Amino acid sequence: MSNDQFNQKAKLAALRHTAEHVLTQAMENLYGQDKVIKAMGPATDEGFYFDFDTAAGFVISEENFPEIEAAMRKIITADLPLTREEVSVEAAKKIFSDNPYKQEWLASIEEKGESVTIYRTGSQFVDLCKGPHVKSTGEIKAFKLLSVAGAYWHGDEKNKMLTRIYGTAFASKKELDAYLFQIEEAKKRDHKKLGKELDLFTFSDLVGAGLPLWTPKGTMIRNLLDNFVWELRQAKGYQKVSIPHITKKDLYETSGHWAKFANDLFRIQTREGHEFAMKPMNCPHHTQIYAHLQRSYRDLPQRYAETTMVYRDEQTGELNGLSRVRCITQDDAHVFCRESQLKDEFYAIWDIIETFYKACGFPELKIRLSLSDPQAMDKYLGSREDWDKYEDQLRGLIKDRGADFFEAIGEAAFYGPKIDFMAKDSLGREWQVATIQADRNMPKNFDLFCINEEGQQERIVMVHAAIMGSIERFLSILIEHYAGAFPVWLSPVQAKILTIADRHADYANQVKAQLVEQGIRTEIDDRPERLSAKIRDAQLQKIPYMLIVGDKEAASQQVGVRSREKGDEGAVKVAELIDQIKGHVAHRS
Amino acid sequence: MSNDQFNQKAKLAALRHTAEHVLTQAMENLYGQDKVIKAMGPATDEGFYFDFDTAAGFVISEENFPEIEAAMRKIITADLPLTREEVSVEAAKKIFSDNPYKQEWLASIEEKGESVTIYRTGSQFVDLCKGPHVKSTGEIKAFKLLSVAGAYWHGDEKNKMLTRIYGTAFASKKELDAYLFQIEEAKKRDHKKLGKELDLFTFSDLVGAGLPLWTPKGTMIRNLLDNFVWELRQAKGYQKVSIPHITKKDLYETSGHWAKFANDLFRIQTREGHEFAMKPMNCPHHTQIYAHLQRSYRDLPQRYAETTMVYRDEQTGELNGLSRVRCITQDDAHVFCRESQLKDEFYAIWDIIETFYKACGFPELKIRLSLSDPQAMDKYLGSREDWDKYEDQLRGLIKDRGADFFEAIGEAAFYGPKIDFMAKDSLGREWQVATIQADRNMPKNFDLFCINEEGQQERIVMVHAAIMGSIERFLSILIEHYAGAFPVWLSPVQAKILTIADRHADYANQVKAQLVEQGIRTEIDDRPERLSAKIRDAQLQKIPYMLIVGDKEAASQQVGVRSREKGDEGAVKVAELIDQIKGHVAHRS
Repeated sequence: MSNDQFNQKAKLAALRHTAEHVLTQAMENLYGQDKVIKAMGPATDEGFYFDFDTAAGFVISEENFPEIEAAMRKIITADLPLTREEVSVEAAKKIFSDNPYKQEWLASIEEKGESVTIYRTGSQFVDLCKGPHVKSTGEIKAFKLLSVAGAYWHGDEKNKMLTRIYGTAFASKKELDAYLFQIEEAKKRDHKKLGKELDLFTFSDLVGAGLPLWTPKGTMIRNLLDNFVWELRQAKGYQKVSIPHITKKDLYETSGHWAKFANDLFRIQTREGHEFAMKPMNCPHHTQIYAHLQRSYRDLPQRYAETTMVYRDEQTGELNGLSRVRCITQDDAHVFCRESQLKDEFYAIWDIIETFYKACGFPELKIRLSLSDPQAMDKYLGSREDWDKYEDQLRGLIKDRGADFFEAIGEAAFYGPKIDFMAKDSLGREWQVATIQADRNMPKNFDLFCINEEGQQERIVMVHAAIMGSIERFLSILIEHYAGAFPVWLSPVQAKILTIADRHADYANQVKAQLVEQGIRTEIDDRPERLSAKIRDAQLQKIPYMLIVGDKEAASQQVGVRSREKGDEGAVKVAELIDQIKGHVAHRS
Repeated sequence: MSNDQFNQKAKLAALRHTAEHVLTQAMENLYGQDKVIKAMGPATDEGFYFDFDTAAGFVISEENFPEIEAAMRKIITADLPLTREEVSVEAAKKIFSDNPYKQEWLASIEEKGESVTIYRTGSQFVDLCKGPHVKSTGEIKAFKLLSVAGAYWHGDEKNKMLTRIYGTAFASKKELDAYLFQIEEAKKRDHKKLGKELDLFTFSDLVGAGLPLWTPKGTMIRNLLDNFVWELRQAKGYQKVSIPHITKKDLYETSGHWAKFANDLFRIQTREGHEFAMKPMNCPHHTQIYAHLQRSYRDLPQRYAETTMVYRDEQTGELNGLSRVRCITQDDAHVFCRESQLKDEFYAIWDIIETFYKACGFPELKIRLSLSDPQAMDKYLGSREDWDKYEDQLRGLIKDRGADFFEAIGEAAFYGPKIDFMAKDSLGREWQVATIQADRNMPKNFDLFCINEEGQQERIVMVHAAIMGSIERFLSILIEHYAGAFPVWLSPVQAKILTIADRHADYANQVKAQLVEQGIRTEIDDRPERLSAKIRDAQLQKIPYMLIVGDKEAASQQVGVRSREKGDEGAVKVAELIDQIKGHVAHRS
């Protein structure tokens, strides 16, 4: 982050912090301190919230927002100054004598021997607070209350349930409007909602939570993406392999996953009493394919690719649509190579990532060099010297490619530094997507080597590289990025033929046959419905090409093209249309 | 089986039974009844065996076979008659007074109140025996002892270990030679041996028994086969779906698999204490994709295809190479259709099976109508009337297609009759390969229906159809069928370029680039070895095209073609060779 960005972010946080005080003051003004006791609340990345302890029977709901916002506006218009005071614990205890939450807070401050600061807004309102704040309430140019929810004091369900009010504030109305539009859009684009509407995946109570079942349409998108990754990998010399989804415990004891993934592993007790596990990742299995033959330096790099599922025993409460599931499809790959080959292998994967994400509507990726934290070396395997060496190697590798990047301390994997790629979606949200990692740990644990030019055993290095990573998570991002309106190459149905009347079914079938022969995914809607209803349904299904067929079109061997984005585009010859669609597919647009 | 076939088979069994008596007589003649006590032995499908109790310290090994065979030959040359006698249990007990095994046998015959028959060979040899036998030992025109093994009396490890001698006999030397050739060939073609030599798959002690890891070459063959199946299915309107490999217990309680597969299920206890299982089949999951939407008759058939793994908790002792594994890849498909659509769906699958097996070198499949057993209706779900109806339906369906078939009572699935397809491999062995099944059970358990033309719920029927079934088992058959010499379209490496000297590496790379551009799987052998060694290695790898490049070839833009089957084929232009190979691929030959 630049200094400028940092200052802006700090200023926004202060503004929101002040807005939170304004909310609390408004609540006290409106309802009185006997009905609402202020507990605590912070500024957040998205705005602010505050928890109130409300009197028995007194309920705050979103219906109260207009009056609360009006009271807040009054305080803002009065442009009251915020003033900071350092006071003794004693004095503070007196000021907040009738507030048990502040008393608890003060007791903990006293125990730690810290100093107490309070902030006053004008002359009437005061709260225990570390700050910082803006100078006066007038600086809040735009704010909005967003929602109400219950929240336990300290997040502990043994404590009292408080009333949490969420809100946000910005330095300008324009920024607030943009934010409100974004959250509204995010709701509309929610992949769980769209996944259902577009029939991409489903969940079954009999199968269980976190275990999505992919319909034909969803599977089509998965496979189109996966085949594209494979096409790019094949051109770089990758080969597919195939492994079982379970293993004896022994594999993970050797790799170290048995200890590391203890809680997340699905464990199996066999009828003979052996302990097996479902794989939480694929690298240990892939090492066994590498290791079953003695490899000459001439055989390297060995590049294994496999799209397969891994399993994590996630807690039910943490599951969320496709973003967090119990069974994750990975487009995984591992390269077994010599140290001298590492740079070329990294670049090859980097090429694949760039091409792939461009075709998926992410033309620009931010690059992060994820480093160890020198203050916490106990979290990492290996010596500080080795880390310095390997981090320098990756840094040099990025610089040699001439790429912009930023460094992030503490973001390395425990076994080595990595290069991470971040994509910004159409709502401006940032996601970490692809990653390339160098691993000297697994080769050591499994004793992986090649025989070099001198006939000696040479320790090899392993590269881990997923392009999409979890296909489920990537699809949750992609669905929301496109709001379900996938580009033509990715649309499960590319064209839908809509008949005007029953008598056009024959011609519709004839057109469909022509399109299908060219590999275009086509459906017909010949229900006895009105054309407008058929158009509306196809539009809701976000099908890129609606092809209307009636008497005129049948007579001229044309179709009336209606595009998802541009609406009516007039009559077009079928052959011409085919060229158009195939053009999109060829260019992955 | 025809009457004629039946008689021939019975005659061969009698002949082998007699050979077994000849073996026993020869053993007594050679070693004396104090050293070898005859226990028991039968004729088998492959020949015969006999178990002897040998005196302490007296060991029979294959080194004794020449003298035993010589003694047998003497008895055969003497052309001794076999005569059957019925005797009382009392008399029999006297005859075999010094043989505890026969005494035990006689006691059991006595208990059951059965009659006792003995067979004499000439005047000297006698055994307790039900027959039948041939008339005289001279009818044994060809025999051979094969192996020795230990075997417990009654197969129970608490009993004494006996010495089992295996042999076989035929009515002619020609038949014996053919059989011996076949078992020799089968040994050479053993898929476990070839799988290692050709590097198709491997097992790891860390991963565990019954869990094959597929190398790039093996994965290539798997995927070529699977893609071919998909190509055929796609043309018949199938769609791919994708399911997780685990499920809550609830799914299998509803489907009935929880009870039926009790022992074979890999069960998982989650960290939250839920009971999950790894899927032993895919149909229950697929029903959940069908059932998540209300289906109109217009949406049917829904045809779901998925190549995915299923899991069985097999006992270690029963595992065998790829023939019996713990993790099975199935090219599975389920069709959800109306009763009126069943016939067309069966025929569509049948078409796929015929095309697929022809391309895999099985041009003729035997068809078996697998029926219920009216004597054991408790084994099946549903009424006798329903079974009659559904069996008639399948019988009619086969007849309407004009196919030859045979019927097998008791071979139905517990939920319905089926059509099975049997392939005969290049050694004449018969394997059940594909199957088509109609299922009215699962649709009932999961309440699957469509809304028909009258707006009513109509119960649907489900068709189960795997083409290869288990890809692992199918590959064990295919590897042995081709003895590893896969046709060009299936060969993981189709062409190997062999350089005569180092200076030809450039031209080799140039040729490789041309071939790879055309999608031909090509490798280069440019090791500093002699050409003859490179040819030998490529031949051992059963690569169909060896392409030799030297000065002459480089100058004329040709390659010296050596085919796996025909040896040297002379110099050929590269473009011509590409056409040739692509022709094989296009015709799947």
